[in-house]
Amino acid sequence: MNKRLVLHSISKIFIIEAVLMLLPTLVSLYYKENDCALIFLEVAAAIALLSIPTATFVLKPKTNSLGSKEGIAIAALCWIAVPILGALPFYFSGAIPSLCDSIFESISGFTTTGSTILTDIEALPRGILFWRSFTHWVGGMGVLVLIIAIMPSDKNSSALHLMRAECAGPQVGKLVPKGKSSALILYIIYGVLTALMIVFLLLGKMPLYDSVCHAMGTAGTGGFGIKNAGIAYYDSPYLEGVITVFMILFGINFNLYYFILIKRFSEIYKNTELKVYLGVIIVSTALITANIMGIYKTVGKSFRFAVFQVASIMTSTGFATADFNIWPEFSKMLLIILMFVGACAGSTGGGFKVSRFIIMFKTAKKSLRKILHPNSVNVVKSDDKALDIETVHGVNSYLIIYLTMILASLLLISLNDFDFATSFTSVVTCINNIGPGISRIGPMDNFSIFSDFSKIVLSVDMLMGRLECLPLIMLFSPSMWSRKF
Amino acid sequence: MNKRLVLHSISKIFIIEAVLMLLPTLVSLYYKENDCALIFLEVAAAIALLSIPTATFVLKPKTNSLGSKEGIAIAALCWIAVPILGALPFYFSGAIPSLCDSIFESISGFTTTGSTILTDIEALPRGILFWRSFTHWVGGMGVLVLIIAIMPSDKNSSALHLMRAECAGPQVGKLVPKGKSSALILYIIYGVLTALMIVFLLLGKMPLYDSVCHAMGTAGTGGFGIKNAGIAYYDSPYLEGVITVFMILFGINFNLYYFILIKRFSEIYKNTELKVYLGVIIVSTALITANIMGIYKTVGKSFRFAVFQVASIMTSTGFATADFNIWPEFSKMLLIILMFVGACAGSTGGGFKVSRFIIMFKTAKKSLRKILHPNSVNVVKSDDKALDIETVHGVNSYLIIYLTMILASLLLISLNDFDFATSFTSVVTCINNIGPGISRIGPMDNFSIFSDFSKIVLSVDMLMGRLECLPLIMLFSPSMWSRKF
Repeated sequence: MNKRLVLHSISKIFIIEAVLMLLPTLVSLYYKENDCALIFLEVAAAIALLSIPTATFVLKPKTNSLGSKEGIAIAALCWIAVPILGALPFYFSGAIPSLCDSIFESISGFTTTGSTILTDIEALPRGILFWRSFTHWVGGMGVLVLIIAIMPSDKNSSALHLMRAECAGPQVGKLVPKGKSSALILYIIYGVLTALMIVFLLLGKMPLYDSVCHAMGTAGTGGFGIKNAGIAYYDSPYLEGVITVFMILFGINFNLYYFILIKRFSEIYKNTELKVYLGVIIVSTALITANIMGIYKTVGKSFRFAVFQVASIMTSTGFATADFNIWPEFSKMLLIILMFVGACAGSTGGGFKVSRFIIMFKTAKKSLRKILHPNSVNVVKSDDKALDIETVHGVNSYLIIYLTMILASLLLISLNDFDFATSFTSVVTCINNIGPGISRIGPMDNFSIFSDFSKIVLSVDMLMGRLECLPLIMLFSPSMWSRKF
Repeated sequence: MNKRLVLHSISKIFIIEAVLMLLPTLVSLYYKENDCALIFLEVAAAIALLSIPTATFVLKPKTNSLGSKEGIAIAALCWIAVPILGALPFYFSGAIPSLCDSIFESISGFTTTGSTILTDIEALPRGILFWRSFTHWVGGMGVLVLIIAIMPSDKNSSALHLMRAECAGPQVGKLVPKGKSSALILYIIYGVLTALMIVFLLLGKMPLYDSVCHAMGTAGTGGFGIKNAGIAYYDSPYLEGVITVFMILFGINFNLYYFILIKRFSEIYKNTELKVYLGVIIVSTALITANIMGIYKTVGKSFRFAVFQVASIMTSTGFATADFNIWPEFSKMLLIILMFVGACAGSTGGGFKVSRFIIMFKTAKKSLRKILHPNSVNVVKSDDKALDIETVHGVNSYLIIYLTMILASLLLISLNDFDFATSFTSVVTCINNIGPGISRIGPMDNFSIFSDFSKIVLSVDMLMGRLECLPLIMLFSPSMWSRKF
């Protein structure tokens, strides 16, 4: 591996992060939170000053060609370092007094999980809350994708290796053959959808600041709010409707939006993942609506809470309008199962991904048929295209690593001696980048109850979920580091 | 499929079951429970009378050759029907007043799960309790294996198809090339080990009746006891030690005992599954011993309870000497994880099986290596032999079906509105054929709290776990039934 190139690239990413911090600086200045603005500026300046030498001349690599190993290493290291640097404003501004808590909150932000250790969100300065929601927006589409989109570079193969490491998914979707242009197209679609959502929220009389923060939290399928009561604070069916629709939209594979742009509508009609995704949302909403009728009395109110929560959990956003902790066990169980399912591959959503489930079921079905008809040749297909065996193996391997991570984390989290539901859903909600769990970490509670050790375990889970495990695990493989400097 | 042959074979199995019922009849007579003896006799007579015609002349099949489809159908149908017939003595004797409960108890017995709906075990007649433990013994090694072992037949290919359907496992272990002799060898090893255990229990001054019942419950890795307090009733470290050792022995692949008999010791040294199995037991025992020291004060007492419970859960037996419901969450979580792991393939134990885990991890490791070295050729090996791709696919498909069954069952069980820990562990303990769970179904509680609907769902899970899903699912495949009568 070309270590020099890796360090060089990461230094560049740090500088971009420093530049991004100017945005919350401006917000702080606008709201006259001058102390806060100063902190952002100081942190940004420190990061930039320390990174500029290594990003320019000190570690100048001999070659710029970036292979899959370098892509994996950059993705893994940058996803560890960027959230830690992003935690510094929380810590130095005094908004979050503990460094461990600050890092947890920042990782939760960048990985678009949305689990919080804050007990009183509204007490925080507006600049800090803006940065908190902004990390969702950046982390949602991806830090590296952003770099590729905005940095001048003509190395498309390098861009592809980076994107592949950051946006794993069962099949690497190549929007357009050129890595750089696809990164740009993705961010344009992402930006336009976010802007549209802000407009719709403003039309519902949500203040501009709130609209921007919530739109960023929705776009990244993150879930950080700016009110202690969450979305329930606004108590507006219209706003809830807008958020529901956009949560669902951001959970769809972004390739499909590109197909709309280039008018290839047939690609959308035959997309199995989209059909299953929408089908699961509809069926789950119907089941939960019926199940919570006893609490909310009317069909309308039950439907309103059900559809919002289903969309919020399935897309891994994690906003809440109702305390689903008090819902019947059936509804809670269904929400927990939806946490595993997750959104579509190629979206900003987390979870195991609908397409992986589809591939898994098709593989199992094929395997059953093979027992009854040993001589038949069965090919697993996806959207009419035959899936290569490597994709099927990749999905299976990911399932194994994913389950192993869950079991190992459960054991470590159980050291807190919390009840089973709390331990179980804390791990599930973090590794799937959702946000809330049930029992003691329900939508109206927070993660401050956990020990620092548990917060570190859950932070690792969030990173594992966001990067789909592989890059982080590879970091520990000796052969990753075998080549000369 | 040759339906005539399937029905003919199942009728024969029913007759064997009727014959088996003569054993509890004798026990009832010995203890002067004449009403009970009469019930056993009547049920046995009714089953035999109704089955003899179809087993002899009425459905006489034109050919005796049994293929994989027929093997699967016989295994699935017999495993549904045999426990239902076996429930009749519970019901008609009045020992279990509800038919649904009787069937649950009987399925729990034959599948060697050991979950009970009884609230006062000691109130039952001795003949009934004997039959209850005897179902563990028969179900442990397998109903069909028993039939193959004792019925005159020269069709070894038929025997193999039947054994393959009943004793799935990731790789079909062929003890000896001849199906019939391997069935006989298996039952001889099984019988000798059971007899040995009875002797050791008697040496510890356990009464003969108790020794026989507990030996049968241990041999089948079942877990039905005959005392309300379970094994804790005897409060004897020696007896607990004997049971611990034998639980571990019955959780080992029986092929290894055969290798000892034919002095091929090298097969044992290089058996990875055995090493991992014993390693997991040792490590888990150490961790739990340390974790429960706060409750039991001394290392000795903590170790005594820890090793018993680890062996009991890991081998899927489910006996208890301590109420692990009051243990710290870490110990409970570890036990829950061990429920998934299960015993060795080819043993009487349940769970996902150690060897499947080994294959899974090797596959995942290979997959990771493939990403770093795309051109390498990696073969997944097991005990120095290369695993064929079909075995790897089979393990993955089984994992998918197994997880799907768990998620679907969780949703249905949650309709009871019990807490998450109860719902979760009820499904996990049943599908892995363990016995107790945590929270409201801990080792000192029972399954009587569930609705009839839930008992049916859990019964299906127990059958799915025992037959490793495939035969039961195949029953619903139209192509199973496509050929002419």
